[in-house]
Amino acid sequence: MLRTVSLIQFGFGGVGRAVASRILTAAAPFKRRYGLRLRYVALCDSRGAVVEPQGLSEDHLLHLLDHKREGRSLISARGGRARENLTEIIEQAGVDETVVIDVTATDETTAALKLALARGHAAVLANKKPLTGSMDDFRELTASGRLRYESTVGAGVPVIATLSETLLAANDAIQRIAGCFSGTLGFLTTGLQAGGAFSALVREAYEKGYTEPDPRDDLGGMDVARKALILARTLGWSLDLEQIEVESLYPAELASGSVDAFLDALSGLDDAYRERVVAALSRQHTLRYVAALEDGAARVGLQSVPLESPLGQLQGTDNLIAFHTAIYDPNPLVLQGRGAGVHGTAAGVLADVVRLSL
Amino acid sequence: MLRTVSLIQFGFGGVGRAVASRILTAAAPFKRRYGLRLRYVALCDSRGAVVEPQGLSEDHLLHLLDHKREGRSLISARGGRARENLTEIIEQAGVDETVVIDVTATDETTAALKLALARGHAAVLANKKPLTGSMDDFRELTASGRLRYESTVGAGVPVIATLSETLLAANDAIQRIAGCFSGTLGFLTTGLQAGGAFSALVREAYEKGYTEPDPRDDLGGMDVARKALILARTLGWSLDLEQIEVESLYPAELASGSVDAFLDALSGLDDAYRERVVAALSRQHTLRYVAALEDGAARVGLQSVPLESPLGQLQGTDNLIAFHTAIYDPNPLVLQGRGAGVHGTAAGVLADVVRLSL
Repeated sequence: MLRTVSLIQFGFGGVGRAVASRILTAAAPFKRRYGLRLRYVALCDSRGAVVEPQGLSEDHLLHLLDHKREGRSLISARGGRARENLTEIIEQAGVDETVVIDVTATDETTAALKLALARGHAAVLANKKPLTGSMDDFRELTASGRLRYESTVGAGVPVIATLSETLLAANDAIQRIAGCFSGTLGFLTTGLQAGGAFSALVREAYEKGYTEPDPRDDLGGMDVARKALILARTLGWSLDLEQIEVESLYPAELASGSVDAFLDALSGLDDAYRERVVAALSRQHTLRYVAALEDGAARVGLQSVPLESPLGQLQGTDNLIAFHTAIYDPNPLVLQGRGAGVHGTAAGVLADVVRLSL
Repeated sequence: MLRTVSLIQFGFGGVGRAVASRILTAAAPFKRRYGLRLRYVALCDSRGAVVEPQGLSEDHLLHLLDHKREGRSLISARGGRARENLTEIIEQAGVDETVVIDVTATDETTAALKLALARGHAAVLANKKPLTGSMDDFRELTASGRLRYESTVGAGVPVIATLSETLLAANDAIQRIAGCFSGTLGFLTTGLQAGGAFSALVREAYEKGYTEPDPRDDLGGMDVARKALILARTLGWSLDLEQIEVESLYPAELASGSVDAFLDALSGLDDAYRERVVAALSRQHTLRYVAALEDGAARVGLQSVPLESPLGQLQGTDNLIAFHTAIYDPNPLVLQGRGAGVHGTAAGVLADVVRLSL
C-alpha cells in the first residue's frame, strides 16, 4: 500500500535544493519504511515556477537541480514559467494530501500558506518570517496543527518537537528556557573565552563565511530574537518581536556604513569585551550569547554563565537548548547539535514532511 | 469540539500512579490546548482490576490512587474485582479510540498488547519486556505504527522520538549511537572518576535507594542491554538480546548469595577499578558505562571516553545519548536529562499518549 503525498515548495536556493536532493535519495527508503512516496507538484523560486500537477519525474527534478546549480532561474528551466502569485500556485497544484514547504526568507509567503492550510493542506516552514509577524498570523497559521516549523530554531535539532510534543504534551511546567541559537555567535564567544580579540574574531568569522554577507545581521541579534519569539509563541505566550529585549554586539553608531568600515571600527570595542570576559572568568563564568525565556519575557544577549553549566561547556558553532522544568530539575533537559547549514535545515524540513505525511 | 480517548492501563505501581495523577492534573490544559479528554476505562494491577466502560470519574480515580497508596490491591477497591486475563479486559473495555498503557515490568502483557493493536487501538509502553523478547514480537507490535515506547529508554528524554522522527525521518545516515542509560551507573562512574572506591560507591548507591533492591540488577548491565536492544531494533536492525555483548561490573562468582555478602565481597574489586580509572585519566579519559551501537552490533560496558566528549562531561545520574550521523558530524546530536524516576517516566508515557491521540 503506497501513499503519495504531493509537495509544493516555495524557495529553491541552498536549503531548497538540499531538501529536493534529500527527497530524491530518500525515495527508496521511505517507500520501504513508510510506504510513502513524496512527489513535487510545484517548485518556485523568487522569479519563476515549475508546476506539474501530475508530479515532477525524478529526471525532471534532477534537471531542475542542475539548472539552478548553474545559477539560473526556474523561469528559464524546462517546464518553467514566470511566477504568478503564490496563492495561484496553491490553487493550481494543490490536490489532496499536499504539503507546502516554505524555505524562503520572506514574509510574502504568508497569504499562500494560509490558503493552503484553509484548503486542508499541511505546511512545513524553515522560514521564520511568517511566524514572527503578527500574533494573529501565528495563531491562524498554527491553529490547525498541520503546520510544522522544526527548522526555524536550531535547524534539524528537534527543539520545537521536544518543546511541544515532549514537554507540553506531558503537561510539564516549563520554568525557564535558555539556548544558544547562533553558530556565528558561538564561534565568537568561544573565541573570546580563549582570549581572542572581539574585532579579530568577527573578521575571522566574516572571512571564513560564518557570518551573513553583512556581519551586523548576526551581531545585531535579531535572528536569534526571532527564534526566541517562535519558542515563546510555541509555549503559548502572546508576544511580539518588539517586546523582546535584544542586546546588539555593536553600538548603534556603527549601524550604517560599509562592511569594511564596520570591521575596522570594531577594534574600538576590544577592550570592553575583554574586560567582560575577564570579569566572568574570575568567578568561573564565561560569556555566551543567550536567548532566555522566563516568566513571560524573552531576552536575547550576552550573558555570563557558569563554566560548568551546559551553556558554559558549549564550544564552537553548535546550538544548545536547556529546558528547566518541574521534571527536569535541578538539571535541565538539554539538546545540542549543529543548528545551522543547509543540510541540517533540509533534514529538519524533511522530518517535518514525514511527520505530517504518516 | 472535544475528543475523548479511552485508556486501559496495565500496571498501577509507582509509575502507573504517576501517570494517573499526571492525567488528572492535565485535564484542563489538554482540553484547552488540544480539545482532548483522556478517561480511564480500565486499570489493572498484578492481582485485580477496575473496569468501567463509561469511564472512571475523577472522584473514582482519586479514590483508587488513595487506595493503592495505602498498599492495597485493586481487587479490594471500589469497583474492583479479581483480574482476569488481560486480553479479556481488552475485549470488555476497548472501545473506539483506545490507548493501552503498559507500565508493568513483565512480558505477560504481550498477548493483550497484540490483541489491542489488532483491534485498531494504540499502545504506549514504559515496559521494555514486550519489545526485547523475540524479533517477531517486536515486529508485530510495532508494525502498525500505533505503538509508542519513548519511556523505555531514557524515561521522558525524547530518545526514541529523536531517533525515529528526527533522524530516520530525515533519512540521515546513522553511523554510531553511544549513550549512558543508567543513573545508578552514572553515579558510580562519576564517583570513580572523583577517586571513590568501587565497593563504597555501590554501598552508598544501595543505601540511598539509587539501585534496585538487589544492586546486581543494575551492575550486571542487562537493563542497559535491553535499552540498547530497543534502540537497535528501532534502527531497523534484526537483533536479539543474546547477541548483545554485555560487560557485568561484578564477576560471575558473586552472582549468587545475599545482598549483604555481595556488598562485602565488592572491596576485592576496588584496586582493579582504581587502576582502570587512573589509566583512563592518564590520557585525559574517564570511564563511563556506555551502550554503543555501530555497524550492526551493540555493546554495553565500561568504556574509556575522552574527558572533553559529551559522555566524558556527563556527571551524576543524568542520561545522555549521542547520535553520530552524516549530518551531525564531527559533533554528534546530543540529548541529556533525567533518564529515570517515576515522574520522568510518567511524563514520557503521557507525551506518547497525546501524540497518539491527536
